[in-house]
Amino acid sequence: MKIYLAGPEVFLPNAREVLDRKIELTRRYGFVPVSPGDLEVPATDTKRAKGLAISSINERLMMSADMIIANLTPFRGIAADIGTAFELGFMCARGCPAYAFSNTVGDHYARVAVLYEGRIEADAQGRPRGPDGLAVEDFEMIDNLMLDGGIEARGGTIVTREVAAEALYTDHQAFEQCLRLAAARFPR
Amino acid sequence: MKIYLAGPEVFLPNAREVLDRKIELTRRYGFVPVSPGDLEVPATDTKRAKGLAISSINERLMMSADMIIANLTPFRGIAADIGTAFELGFMCARGCPAYAFSNTVGDHYARVAVLYEGRIEADAQGRPRGPDGLAVEDFEMIDNLMLDGGIEARGGTIVTREVAAEALYTDHQAFEQCLRLAAARFPR
Repeated sequence: MKIYLAGPEVFLPNAREVLDRKIELTRRYGFVPVSPGDLEVPATDTKRAKGLAISSINERLMMSADMIIANLTPFRGIAADIGTAFELGFMCARGCPAYAFSNTVGDHYARVAVLYEGRIEADAQGRPRGPDGLAVEDFEMIDNLMLDGGIEARGGTIVTREVAAEALYTDHQAFEQCLRLAAARFPR
Repeated sequence: MKIYLAGPEVFLPNAREVLDRKIELTRRYGFVPVSPGDLEVPATDTKRAKGLAISSINERLMMSADMIIANLTPFRGIAADIGTAFELGFMCARGCPAYAFSNTVGDHYARVAVLYEGRIEADAQGRPRGPDGLAVEDFEMIDNLMLDGGIEARGGTIVTREVAAEALYTDHQAFEQCLRLAAARFPR
């Protein structure tokens, strides 16, 4: 089985090294890794054309994969990397088993509460809202309910683990736990 | 044709009113609107079960739709609502035409530059990076390349428009432009 390795690791200064380690771990558990960066991006005339070429390559890689493991560690804010969320939705629509991990244990509600500096109050219907009036999802979920729900509906799990700040995107233990769960479910 | 109306409007204090207006506009352009909140959420025992039920309903609604119009206006940070990104990926994987809009004209690079207070510098390979070392996508795209790329690959467009701050999630002109484009492409 081929696993698409989605996550913001592609943005790291040592992306190649980190992705290579994820690829190696994936193989160790008996799967074939499919990773953004596997294919070379063709030369393009404009920045936008380059972005479109990368998108097209990543879509093709996803179409070749049977499963996804998504890194949902919050990225530049309170939520997972948005490209990773797109890819998770993509693979869920294809009916693929989906696993995910986050290298922080706080849930979605807790992160929004920090953003709102604790100023969350229930409205007349009992629904929690921030000072801007926006409802705060309070479903004991790691991220937005579409992400948690999509993963659970496909038999997957979100593994969370608190790691040292400097290893936020490079600690592979939660990722490895996803591989372990997938290997137990789909033995060679 | 049925259009799934994705976006963070569900979190607004006047969500029902705003969604009803979008539904009405969608009908006016000859489409059948499919909107989160169309189906009643069954009674559940736990918060988490309720979240899962909503996810399941939204997935069913997407499976019934032929097209998506996604509201990618930045939500609680520099990127689109992550649930909306999941849904956009979901509909792209189904091969559905995809349109999107944002009620702000700044692109992804500009928003990340604000987050980094302008401290973006090219690395040895010429790739722009923030002070945290993370690469900044510089592809003249509204959001992450998977979103812009997925939409363009399915013949869609992202319409952007600057609106007054208080109408950030309630101004329907960019949304209506998406409907206009879709109606021209798929005449009744």
